Amino acid sequence: MGEEEKVLKDPVHGYIYIHDSLFWELINTPEMQRLRRVRQLGTAYLTYPGGEHSRFSHALGAYEVVRRILQAFDRNGYSVDPDWGRLVMAAALVHDIGHGPFSHALEPFWGQTHEDWGEAILLDPSTAVHQVLAAVDPGFPGEVAAVIQKRHPNRLAVSMVSSQLDADRLDYLMRDSLFTGVDYGKFDLERILRIILPHGDRLVVKRSGLHTIEAYLLARYFMYWQVYFHPVCRSAEVVLKKTIERALVLCREGVPVGAGDPVLEGWLGGEPLDVDRYLALDDHTIMTALAHFARSDDAILRDLARRYRDRRLFRYVSFPAQKSPRIYAEIERRVRQAGYDPAYYLDVDETSEVYYDYYVGDEGGAGQREQALYLWDGEELIEMSRLSRPLSGIAREPQAERRLYFPEAVEHVVKERVSRR
Amino acid sequence: MGEEEKVLKDPVHGYIYIHDSLFWELINTPEMQRLRRVRQLGTAYLTYPGGEHSRFSHALGAYEVVRRILQAFDRNGYSVDPDWGRLVMAAALVHDIGHGPFSHALEPFWGQTHEDWGEAILLDPSTAVHQVLAAVDPGFPGEVAAVIQKRHPNRLAVSMVSSQLDADRLDYLMRDSLFTGVDYGKFDLERILRIILPHGDRLVVKRSGLHTIEAYLLARYFMYWQVYFHPVCRSAEVVLKKTIERALVLCREGVPVGAGDPVLEGWLGGEPLDVDRYLALDDHTIMTALAHFARSDDAILRDLARRYRDRRLFRYVSFPAQKSPRIYAEIERRVRQAGYDPAYYLDVDETSEVYYDYYVGDEGGAGQREQALYLWDGEELIEMSRLSRPLSGIAREPQAERRLYFPEAVEHVVKERVSRR
Amino acid sequence: MGEEEKVLKDPVHGYIYIHDSLFWELINTPEMQRLRRVRQLGTAYLTYPGGEHSRFSHALGAYEVVRRILQAFDRNGYSVDPDWGRLVMAAALVHDIGHGPFSHALEPFWGQTHEDWGEAILLDPSTAVHQVLAAVDPGFPGEVAAVIQKRHPNRLAVSMVSSQLDADRLDYLMRDSLFTGVDYGKFDLERILRIILPHGDRLVVKRSGLHTIEAYLLARYFMYWQVYFHPVCRSAEVVLKKTIERALVLCREGVPVGAGDPVLEGWLGGEPLDVDRYLALDDHTIMTALAHFARSDDAILRDLARRYRDRRLFRYVSFPAQKSPRIYAEIERRVRQAGYDPAYYLDVDETSEVYYDYYVGDEGGAGQREQALYLWDGEELIEMSRLSRPLSGIAREPQAERRLYFPEAVEHVVKERVSRR
Amino acid sequence: MGEEEKVLKDPVHGYIYIHDSLFWELINTPEMQRLRRVRQLGTAYLTYPGGEHSRFSHALGAYEVVRRILQAFDRNGYSVDPDWGRLVMAAALVHDIGHGPFSHALEPFWGQTHEDWGEAILLDPSTAVHQVLAAVDPGFPGEVAAVIQKRHPNRLAVSMVSSQLDADRLDYLMRDSLFTGVDYGKFDLERILRIILPHGDRLVVKRSGLHTIEAYLLARYFMYWQVYFHPVCRSAEVVLKKTIERALVLCREGVPVGAGDPVLEGWLGGEPLDVDRYLALDDHTIMTALAHFARSDDAILRDLARRYRDRRLFRYVSFPAQKSPRIYAEIERRVRQAGYDPAYYLDVDETSEVYYDYYVGDEGGAGQREQALYLWDGEELIEMSRLSRPLSGIAREPQAERRLYFPEAVEHVVKERVSRR
Repeated sequence: MGEEEKVLKDPVHGYIYIHDSLFWELINTPEMQRLRRVRQLGTAYLTYPGGEHSRFSHALGAYEVVRRILQAFDRNGYSVDPDWGRLVMAAALVHDIGHGPFSHALEPFWGQTHEDWGEAILLDPSTAVHQVLAAVDPGFPGEVAAVIQKRHPNRLAVSMVSSQLDADRLDYLMRDSLFTGVDYGKFDLERILRIILPHGDRLVVKRSGLHTIEAYLLARYFMYWQVYFHPVCRSAEVVLKKTIERALVLCREGVPVGAGDPVLEGWLGGEPLDVDRYLALDDHTIMTALAHFARSDDAILRDLARRYRDRRLFRYVSFPAQKSPRIYAEIERRVRQAGYDPAYYLDVDETSEVYYDYYVGDEGGAGQREQALYLWDGEELIEMSRLSRPLSGIAREPQAERRLYFPEAVEHVVKERVSRR
Repeated sequence: MGEEEKVLKDPVHGYIYIHDSLFWELINTPEMQRLRRVRQLGTAYLTYPGGEHSRFSHALGAYEVVRRILQAFDRNGYSVDPDWGRLVMAAALVHDIGHGPFSHALEPFWGQTHEDWGEAILLDPSTAVHQVLAAVDPGFPGEVAAVIQKRHPNRLAVSMVSSQLDADRLDYLMRDSLFTGVDYGKFDLERILRIILPHGDRLVVKRSGLHTIEAYLLARYFMYWQVYFHPVCRSAEVVLKKTIERALVLCREGVPVGAGDPVLEGWLGGEPLDVDRYLALDDHTIMTALAHFARSDDAILRDLARRYRDRRLFRYVSFPAQKSPRIYAEIERRVRQAGYDPAYYLDVDETSEVYYDYYVGDEGGAGQREQALYLWDGEELIEMSRLSRPLSGIAREPQAERRLYFPEAVEHVVKERVSRR
Repeated sequence: MGEEEKVLKDPVHGYIYIHDSLFWELINTPEMQRLRRVRQLGTAYLTYPGGEHSRFSHALGAYEVVRRILQAFDRNGYSVDPDWGRLVMAAALVHDIGHGPFSHALEPFWGQTHEDWGEAILLDPSTAVHQVLAAVDPGFPGEVAAVIQKRHPNRLAVSMVSSQLDADRLDYLMRDSLFTGVDYGKFDLERILRIILPHGDRLVVKRSGLHTIEAYLLARYFMYWQVYFHPVCRSAEVVLKKTIERALVLCREGVPVGAGDPVLEGWLGGEPLDVDRYLALDDHTIMTALAHFARSDDAILRDLARRYRDRRLFRYVSFPAQKSPRIYAEIERRVRQAGYDPAYYLDVDETSEVYYDYYVGDEGGAGQREQALYLWDGEELIEMSRLSRPLSGIAREPQAERRLYFPEAVEHVVKERVSRR
Repeated sequence: MGEEEKVLKDPVHGYIYIHDSLFWELINTPEMQRLRRVRQLGTAYLTYPGGEHSRFSHALGAYEVVRRILQAFDRNGYSVDPDWGRLVMAAALVHDIGHGPFSHALEPFWGQTHEDWGEAILLDPSTAVHQVLAAVDPGFPGEVAAVIQKRHPNRLAVSMVSSQLDADRLDYLMRDSLFTGVDYGKFDLERILRIILPHGDRLVVKRSGLHTIEAYLLARYFMYWQVYFHPVCRSAEVVLKKTIERALVLCREGVPVGAGDPVLEGWLGGEPLDVDRYLALDDHTIMTALAHFARSDDAILRDLARRYRDRRLFRYVSFPAQKSPRIYAEIERRVRQAGYDPAYYLDVDETSEVYYDYYVGDEGGAGQREQALYLWDGEELIEMSRLSRPLSGIAREPQAERRLYFPEAVEHVVKERVSRR
């Protein structure tokens, strides 16, 4: 590093500042560089052409947000223990190291959550990221993993990296907004840095910062509905998942499918993943597999892979839960009549299944109370939705959206059936 | 399309507006969708983490810029023939359809320029893009190709798509600036739309627009030096090219290398590309090949591929042409002594070899005169650098930069030798 | 004008486009130019130093928003009658022509609302703005006035200029946000243009535009609380109003006060205003009067004027209505004991007294139903807060804020008394 | 202040941070608050409607830029003496305290430069700003004044506040660009903070920062030609100056003119200004005087004042110096024939008369060398235009522009005469 600060240019934060060679070494590990090969928003680039950014730039951004929070603490007289600061910054930098190809979109296929893979990678002595962390202290990789897994006893460290108001969300909301171009729902990061403060083992917000936090939580609300739950984004996910499912079925039925990569081919054939093999997978592996599948002899696999590559996605219709199974069965039958196997060409997608939390108040159980955000007026803590009208509107039971996906060729029959009483 | 306009969200232009189903159909061809799999800036994302955007969004942007220019012509009383307008918009939309993996970075490997590949794709009756264009008129694919190849007799159409002040550059400068975060050197696109006008067979600029065009040309100057010629961006290119070169040598020496893709493997083995096979290649093909190469038995191929994947790029030193071949030979010898094959671990890169034109005036030969930009004051045309001081500064002979690239292990010996008189 | 479009540079909209000489002539009337001498945000620049912009730039912006809405109607197949379009654009351009010094802050002093003054100015044959409008048609000034006064039978024209989602608000929210720097709470004007449509005699919103309108209404919510209701902004208003009140009292008691301007001095002395005299008043008149007052022999007038000029504003404390009159009387007594006349040094300010409507739903009476916003899903109209959770939170009874203002010298005694039970 | 930092919202820098109560006290002096009553860009708001911001916000911005430069020095290991830092920040904050009504536009009328007035204000024991500074140390007001007057022996302090690359310019370029909306010619302030460094008694720029500084200097070039030298901005200045000149002539001829303010009336009548009286003048004083003049019995004074208020400015034509005095005399004669007194209705304006320096290299004499900017490559200082092609273009002799201004009624005859050979 030398004595000068190191910087990286970033369209969201202007610059990422690195003063401690630990972070520079972490950034340069193959495991961190691999995140350049995993798109932040999975399949959303098929809906928002600009949304092609990777987990790597988000990881840098999350680190930078923590760095600035710590700087603000320091400036405002909350002394920060340097070792604690290093722990939090390191955790923010590597918090997504366990993400696999297409981030959340394909996560269910890999056997465990990305947080679990992240822990496995950090604890595996053969990884460079483990070695860099262990050089600080043999227990340091475990500390970092415990923060990411939210089980570290220092709850404040956990809060900074993973909570309702953490460096992860603060970065990804701004980043996804910039790259997709969905730019309403901005918030004022610089002011957020000044109004959050450590209070015991959690981050709380100064009373005067209520509207700033409202704007942040509403930005989250907008991004969920405009991007993360966008029906076309989810259509691309459905097509991609069905493609992988078809390849798995074929392999398990003994029909080998070429995928262009030995690790992926092994996994399709039933070989379990380990850290080393998991790290070999990235978006490129899947995209190359789709190129192979698009030339497959199997008509379903070939069609699905081409649909994804050429962006001929599934159509959809709103399909509330109260629609009876009888209607679903009838649609299934008609889809089959039209020559489509419903196992691959019909899917119900519920947004409430995905990570859903643009804001929850504290009315629910203990878990929600831990998640809720509190204002500090110098005397007491007040849960935010008690003082905020817009938040009182959104801080209620999840607002589920359930949709039925199918090919364009059956659009007419499906829609006709769904809209009928 | 129906009667409503179709829009796509775009972080650069806000929205891309599509009123004519021709363009919607073109966008949805597999050949256009493939551009989602080719990064706009090749390897620059390794220097600017945000620069991960694809040719696809640029293609949409170039189309949108033409659409807005035509709208401005119309508003200002220059009547636009609808067929001519369609030709220019279509050409802008597909102008980059012939780009291969990593855009310019690997272009020399594919046997002909991306413009030639583009023409071949547009004229090949088996491509969807050909079919959509031919549905307008059997001669239309050829017309569009002629515009892209700059040989169409309608010079104004050529100017709109490919000149010193064309939709291509107007889009990519703004786009690359936004995504990399290198945001000085902005210009005022909205005003540019109002000050350019057709004058005979070329685009000229109203006299009152001088400073606006200066700002645009200087933006180009800044982007060249900050991004396109950035020494680290070019280091990544050198490493990538050397990797491919090594794989080619091995294959041609009869040592087969797995690459994960039959087309790429065929090409490495000497099979020529045709349109169909060329279209099968994209960034993912190369990235998957690098994953294979990183497990190769060949030490050089394995090391180079890992260097690219893990971003351990070459170091560099300025190496002006007047440095004698004797110095180069001596450095070559020392690099070999250090255990590196100079064929793969030493490279001279000259920016004047790349497309170089942030602005040229009209002082050179006929070619330069065709390229120069003219102001129209209502009476006569005046070449721009005659009235502009900043442009008179940059509109001279190319400003070459020549650099020597090598691995970090020999940095000391190389730098010591180069700096010695 | 000639045949080329005329443009004005604007930091909010980029450019204001003028294609019809009527608007250029309107802009150049002395009555419109006078709006350059009236600040848009009254006293808010004392809290937000950047908020120094005038009504003039807002008037241009409101015109531009209407122009773009009409353009979008046209592009989307809603034919716009050119005469109707002219009426709406003219009404938007002159809608604030009746604002007096410091806009809303001093409005109660001038005898009638700014809309009434606006009508009087438009109908007065001696004004240039009347003459320019009357040249279109003798009845045109009355038509424009009727739109501004919301009594024109064409309800759609009224909606465009004055409703929950009108050109006035669309411009001022963006403008006030940019100039003050309070930049969260952005919305996507370009998309709003595409999702609003005429439906009978009102503007409605396409169903797909729900989130866009939510963002706009929340921007309004944020601007009200961060700027328009900001306690320090309102403190400056209180000080300014008390200054004028003191001058009036002195004049009416027969103690003449110099004010530097014969019209203002006449008015202070009891002469009623007419159109000609009202138009002679602007921010500069008041500011020069304050300079005179700051040199007055009357200690109260001198002190208040200096407080405003030197920005030594009143302090404040929240003072809910349930606090009994007894407490107020006790505070009044203590303020008097401290040597301050409570008539000038104590004031209760209620935000619910000011124009309050960041959003109302349709649950109230007929007036609210006329104000509510409706979504159009192709079949029926749905009031917006029925589908929107954040809006359901804010679309309820007014959220009043009541504050007590007083000089810093009595801060301790007042706060002590208010906080006591 | 208490222990928490104080912030002000600012549309240019986001926030202005104040950690030291000295600066808060300075901001709250009447002399600093008076800068709210002086527009930064004089008459430019008549051309760029958004350019209505005051010197006050610029003063805060210049302070903030110095604060950030000092922070960057500190972060990069250049230790900053706290007393020196205070001196430089204080000087930046008050550097424009001597500006009078309409800033540069009317400066020649007030007997001495705004810097001299600034020094007089700082040294006058009766001003609050003097008292606040003197509370630090009795010699402190003199120190601050010496920095502003560029005669302080600490040349580095002078450089920070007033040089080719100082806090003053860094702020006003960004600020004027934002408010006018003339937004090409941006530069990267955050990077500038990292590449400037103290080198002996001057600020120099790291070699790697060349392009960043080019962008800054070109931003200055663009702002000069688009705003500061804009022919319509200067037309408004001409009309305003001629109005004041006419009022002076009338007063000195014994024809009293009412101006609404005793200080201004005294000055018009020949009374010299002193600090106290000078501080009583601001934009409002002049604007109220124009309202009086617009009702004058003198036809010339009345006409000129109305022209300014109603924005009926003079027309202009380029009038190079080589045009002979004979042509001027002939035009003068024709203007008089048309019924206009050429002393008030004809004016030659030369931009080279105004402060002109978007960049000068070091080729001139000693003065220019002191002004030139140098790059530091770790070994030697290199004057910037030697390495920069765009700067070599602009760093030459001043590019003068000479224009003739006159009323629209004589436009035809003047233009006809000027264009004739």
